[in-house]
Amino acid sequence: MKAARIYAEKDVRVEDVEIKEVGANDVKVEVAWTGICGSDLHAYSHFIGIPTEEHPISKRQAPLTLGHEFSGTVTEVGSDVTALKPGDRVCIEPNLRCGECKECREGNYHMCRNSNGAFIGLADDGGFAEYCVMNEQYCHQIPDEMTMEQAALVEPTAVAYHGVDIAGVQSGDAVLVTGAGPIGLLTALSARAAGANKVFVSDVSKERLELAETFGFVKTLNPMEDDVVAVVMEETNGDGVDVALECAGVQPTLDTCLQAVKRKGTVCVVAIFAQNPEIDAFASTTKEVEIKFVLAYANIYDRVINLITSGQIPSEKVVTHKIKLDNVVEEGFELLLNDKSQSKVLVSAK
Amino acid sequence: MKAARIYAEKDVRVEDVEIKEVGANDVKVEVAWTGICGSDLHAYSHFIGIPTEEHPISKRQAPLTLGHEFSGTVTEVGSDVTALKPGDRVCIEPNLRCGECKECREGNYHMCRNSNGAFIGLADDGGFAEYCVMNEQYCHQIPDEMTMEQAALVEPTAVAYHGVDIAGVQSGDAVLVTGAGPIGLLTALSARAAGANKVFVSDVSKERLELAETFGFVKTLNPMEDDVVAVVMEETNGDGVDVALECAGVQPTLDTCLQAVKRKGTVCVVAIFAQNPEIDAFASTTKEVEIKFVLAYANIYDRVINLITSGQIPSEKVVTHKIKLDNVVEEGFELLLNDKSQSKVLVSAK
Repeated sequence: MKAARIYAEKDVRVEDVEIKEVGANDVKVEVAWTGICGSDLHAYSHFIGIPTEEHPISKRQAPLTLGHEFSGTVTEVGSDVTALKPGDRVCIEPNLRCGECKECREGNYHMCRNSNGAFIGLADDGGFAEYCVMNEQYCHQIPDEMTMEQAALVEPTAVAYHGVDIAGVQSGDAVLVTGAGPIGLLTALSARAAGANKVFVSDVSKERLELAETFGFVKTLNPMEDDVVAVVMEETNGDGVDVALECAGVQPTLDTCLQAVKRKGTVCVVAIFAQNPEIDAFASTTKEVEIKFVLAYANIYDRVINLITSGQIPSEKVVTHKIKLDNVVEEGFELLLNDKSQSKVLVSAK
Repeated sequence: MKAARIYAEKDVRVEDVEIKEVGANDVKVEVAWTGICGSDLHAYSHFIGIPTEEHPISKRQAPLTLGHEFSGTVTEVGSDVTALKPGDRVCIEPNLRCGECKECREGNYHMCRNSNGAFIGLADDGGFAEYCVMNEQYCHQIPDEMTMEQAALVEPTAVAYHGVDIAGVQSGDAVLVTGAGPIGLLTALSARAAGANKVFVSDVSKERLELAETFGFVKTLNPMEDDVVAVVMEETNGDGVDVALECAGVQPTLDTCLQAVKRKGTVCVVAIFAQNPEIDAFASTTKEVEIKFVLAYANIYDRVINLITSGQIPSEKVVTHKIKLDNVVEEGFELLLNDKSQSKVLVSAK
């Protein structure tokens, strides 16, 4: 079958590979759509997140098939699989887990001690392929009403929703989202689904803010033109937002979150910071701010599937481009690295 | 009456001053004991926290009588005072508040928008004096069984207990306290009162750790000799502590807290940082750490009074020295600035 495999930095090859054998607890999924994530770009650009020695859970190392945001149809199941059957439509929850460590046993499998945050599609073969064979536990069945495009968006939406969930966004809240990349946009949609009343989204890209404006409920702010903190304060009667969700991963946006949040408010760091940020300790102390760092998601796939299917989280709005697997490097990775007006790109092998 | 008033940096004068008139809502308290706080030392050394223009709530400015950790006996009450009468024994909750802003109305008077964190004893005349006249709302009656020394320790204990409370220390928790100054020690005692099972206390001062050891339940660690994180990990089966309470206010101890806390654990910043710290974002994200900043206390004085009176928080253990008001500069401020083996110093005008 065709698969996009990473060998090294800037070396992803769409090539013909053998399909893995279906083990007793495995299912074979014919991939429908696979989204390109920031992690795929990190892997492509800097070979980050790809094991060069055997990974303790997947037992694999490079070259590996990328792609962890995907949907598809079960075409074959192993002898011990009971929860799924051929024909079932699924989306994939790709965080690798051992199932045996304390975190896994306590339901925090996204922090599995033996996985180190590894994913199918980074530390094991993933969804930029015609088929993917994996343990059945990584598959969630989806309702008939959910489209395969929507199902491919469950994974990034789960990242966003997990942030909103852990941050404790409540109905009626004022929320600031810094950064309007795919995760920022999905975070704004998730906050709205959680009942947020006012949602501010800031970004330096005009195109990204234009996309946010199509949501209808967002007040967009561009720090190149607007005093983000001043506007937020003015529109919240001088209180600040209840929750600020940091989805950009840089010092200035974290500063904005800390300044724009209300007393006893929550700043939730959804983004991965490449450099350690400094914290304005005085502002944080005098306001009794709570800073919550979040990682991926756990135990929320079913909720997210239902919220997308019902239209409460219209995740498909963040899709700006659909491409063929053959063109994943030029029309996918390279496009996203060079054109910041793009948001989510979906890839299909068909 | 005699009072220790601050005029400028390193200029505190014990002098004779007039006693303020008792207004309709005021009570006059004959001071029993007053503790010296780190804030008093900041005021003495750097003139920090003392208004040089009229404070919006107290309507006062320097020179002002220092001292905000104090106890005493009511000797006179204003015509509209109903909750207190002469002879009542009280301790003082000194955070100035307007009673009218949103924070005050919502019970977060410690973040009063018109006070800016000001205290009686910094922005208004305080307890290093024979008498203090203040609005009755700042006084809490204490039980007969509570000593006046204990009552003077309610304020710093409330700071410590508020941290433990907001951090959510639960029975059975493993807790790390970095910094064994008076607040660190009272935080360790408060964590134990909240049911903490293992309590680790780290400090670079041998004398401070020796004082912590007298508590009986503390495992003391000196980063000059011990690998604090390694010991904590070893003694918590590799999990890390449930809660780390940062009471030192410097980068290395915050780093230790972030490293020693378990996955999904809480780091509570009780200390005031003089310099903005850097946050290890990778460790914080991969462990989903929550960092909570706390300020003073609110609505917990009665609980703290009861916990000290019952002996559940034996705050008096942190007292290392008792002095006369006449000697507050040399035997109090200067001693504490120069002798790190000292912990809490209590002052009496009698």
